[in-house]
Amino acid sequence: MPVLPDKLVRELTGIMGRERVFTAREDRLCYSYDGTFRQYLPDVVVKPGRTEEVARVLALANREGIPVHPRGAGTGLSGGSVPYGGGIALVLTDMNAIYELNREDMLARMGPGLVTAELHRAVEKEGLFYPPDPGSAESCTMGGNVAECAGGPRALKYGVTRDYILGLEVVLADGRVIHTGGRTVKNVTAYDLTRLFTGSEGTLGVITAITVRLIPRPRAVCTMLATFRDLETTGAAINAIMGAGVVPRTLEIMDQLAIKVVEKFSPCGLPQDAAAVLLIETDGDLEAAQREAGVVEAVLKKAGAAGIKMAANPAEAAELWRARKAVSPAVGRIKPTKISEDATVPRSKVPAMITRLGQIREQYHLDLVIFGHAGDGNLHPNILCNRKDADEMQRVEKAIAAIFQAALELGGTLSGEHGIGLLKAPFLRAELGDDGLAVVESIKRTLDPGNILNPGKVFPSAAGGK
Amino acid sequence: MPVLPDKLVRELTGIMGRERVFTAREDRLCYSYDGTFRQYLPDVVVKPGRTEEVARVLALANREGIPVHPRGAGTGLSGGSVPYGGGIALVLTDMNAIYELNREDMLARMGPGLVTAELHRAVEKEGLFYPPDPGSAESCTMGGNVAECAGGPRALKYGVTRDYILGLEVVLADGRVIHTGGRTVKNVTAYDLTRLFTGSEGTLGVITAITVRLIPRPRAVCTMLATFRDLETTGAAINAIMGAGVVPRTLEIMDQLAIKVVEKFSPCGLPQDAAAVLLIETDGDLEAAQREAGVVEAVLKKAGAAGIKMAANPAEAAELWRARKAVSPAVGRIKPTKISEDATVPRSKVPAMITRLGQIREQYHLDLVIFGHAGDGNLHPNILCNRKDADEMQRVEKAIAAIFQAALELGGTLSGEHGIGLLKAPFLRAELGDDGLAVVESIKRTLDPGNILNPGKVFPSAAGGK
Repeated sequence: MPVLPDKLVRELTGIMGRERVFTAREDRLCYSYDGTFRQYLPDVVVKPGRTEEVARVLALANREGIPVHPRGAGTGLSGGSVPYGGGIALVLTDMNAIYELNREDMLARMGPGLVTAELHRAVEKEGLFYPPDPGSAESCTMGGNVAECAGGPRALKYGVTRDYILGLEVVLADGRVIHTGGRTVKNVTAYDLTRLFTGSEGTLGVITAITVRLIPRPRAVCTMLATFRDLETTGAAINAIMGAGVVPRTLEIMDQLAIKVVEKFSPCGLPQDAAAVLLIETDGDLEAAQREAGVVEAVLKKAGAAGIKMAANPAEAAELWRARKAVSPAVGRIKPTKISEDATVPRSKVPAMITRLGQIREQYHLDLVIFGHAGDGNLHPNILCNRKDADEMQRVEKAIAAIFQAALELGGTLSGEHGIGLLKAPFLRAELGDDGLAVVESIKRTLDPGNILNPGKVFPSAAGGK
Repeated sequence: MPVLPDKLVRELTGIMGRERVFTAREDRLCYSYDGTFRQYLPDVVVKPGRTEEVARVLALANREGIPVHPRGAGTGLSGGSVPYGGGIALVLTDMNAIYELNREDMLARMGPGLVTAELHRAVEKEGLFYPPDPGSAESCTMGGNVAECAGGPRALKYGVTRDYILGLEVVLADGRVIHTGGRTVKNVTAYDLTRLFTGSEGTLGVITAITVRLIPRPRAVCTMLATFRDLETTGAAINAIMGAGVVPRTLEIMDQLAIKVVEKFSPCGLPQDAAAVLLIETDGDLEAAQREAGVVEAVLKKAGAAGIKMAANPAEAAELWRARKAVSPAVGRIKPTKISEDATVPRSKVPAMITRLGQIREQYHLDLVIFGHAGDGNLHPNILCNRKDADEMQRVEKAIAAIFQAALELGGTLSGEHGIGLLKAPFLRAELGDDGLAVVESIKRTLDPGNILNPGKVFPSAAGGK
């Protein structure tokens, strides 16, 4: 793909002014990557400030057949926002206002560029709560959260992004603007376009405004950390907790390698001989949170946990969380390339999946760290490697295929919360089957006949192989 | 539409046996209606017992261009399952098995013909909970619940059907069978087909198996009934409850006419001079349910409720519910035709909507009873009339249009939980706009190019006018 003709760049400048259109190589480099190791240079970067500008950019791109790659903060972990094949990087971070925060209707309306944690803080000040909390909440944007249907630890009890979206403003591939859903939780008027666009990874339309529902902020949270001497006991404990009639708000796991890496780079006092630790939170009314924490504690003891630390106050809880939050940055320091997967299995299959991941680690001689959301079966096996080591990368590729195969064999899915993007597109057929794939492809063709929206993503035919 | 040629009836018999294919007029009459006043005779009724039979019926119908109207128990309130234009009534009530009830993964898998209340009872025996509870739960089927995205009183706290569907087996218009979603709450692999089919009202595919997620059964419920002397106070109380940081599991309203009708036909001891009553439930752990009930009670008193009755035990709670559950049957006894609407507004607009409904009642001189789910803005204005009274029916038509206009003007939607079906199709454009309508129409054309699946429903172009 050649750099865009000057004429088109001038047209873009005409739409939104010179200060919102970038063609210098150093500017384009800034928007060439995401949270993966894939990198592609866009021909031009545009930063619209209003829906109308987005609409005019898409109308132009559709007319000229130019690829458009919508993106927010670029924290994605599946290559969903990298400008594969060049074209326009459509950066939505300037559309970041909270338009409305309505306590009575318990909803908020915002632009796609709003940082997720800023939404958290704004609504919590009002005694309200927006549960989805992806690991990158402090930097990722709500538009990206909707486009990928982000999850996070609290999804165990509260569900994922799709469960909180009431309505969307979407610019279609040809520049038309539609409004899906609305301001009510109950809405069954025609097809559920809101959830069709949620998780569509920028391939069906560009999200320019988001209405989310909010819930009352839980009044209390109890946090505990449990240590285990072997993985079997850990797995049994996870199942026992979920079988005890309690849904913790989070149930996070770190395996031995994750513990060691954390202790090496940002010591948290974790026992380095432990096979795994579980970080568990219950919430609700104080009495409910404490009762459920008591149930979990009893189950953990019975299941054979080697140690249980209950946080006595928010400061101690934050200290327990520090270890979990340190994993991702810490593993990034072992080797230059970190590949974070999110293959997900039914929760009863977590022990089996952990076993399979251990076998994959041995078979391909790789540094594979396991952590993630054990309670909903959404593990994050992270492979640490060096993308410049061709031999290692071959083993990595085989290991990734083996991880997906294991997840599907155990009744799971390729992706729990990161999306398919560029990296998992070659594997899509294995999960959807020929007919399922044909259906999603037909929807893509219907809504984006020119294939300008995020081309090369999600679909195996477009993914250019592995 | 003529009766199907014998050759095709024989082909249907070949697919599933003579005992599952019905052509006698009295059999066809049984499947000519639903919960509305619309009635159309199908040419043939088939009752498949397996997915493969459904697939072969659709392949045949698609080849021959025969309309197919999928249905369960026919309790729908928007004319979504009546065999408009004749063709095949595809009755799924025999596919009613629970295939799996999995405590560890907290999910259940079933056929579309399973009666909703039977699912409730089966999972509650295991300490689990399936929240959606449409008013017809004792007779409606899960397939219909998914096809219409059913709600019910408990949706206020727990959400609607779409929030509980993990995966679907769907037969496409041409007989291909696909599986959407899976067994995990977190699943972002390609587009959200699960929720595209949920609420698609039988126009995109036929649902032949359903996987739902379950939650732990709440340990305690507190039930109370509050009486009000005027509607303004009632509206203010509703807003005050929701603003107090409590989400009751139900917040139901009955207006004065609803109270009078109930007291006439099935006396429950409601105060007949009350302008409205609210039936409110809180749930959770006993302490949480009681604390929240206490908050609600205090808010009600402060807001000026004339009386509050708190149920001391389950028997008293059932007695309070008896009045609410008697409304629908009782209003049906006033006049021969009952039209139940479900226009929905943001909850802060409930008082305004009640005022508008009162004005509509006066303007068109109609018996209009208001009850429903005030907490989520999902009111059920019921118009009582006589379909044989042409003058009255003209006023009814105008009143219905006015109700929809009011809902949309207040930021609401045509349908909260009944679906668009036949009755609301003429109004769809007003809510979706031209471009939104074009998108849903394009999806319909893509997945059902021959327009055999439930033709005449949802889309205004096909609705044959009002």
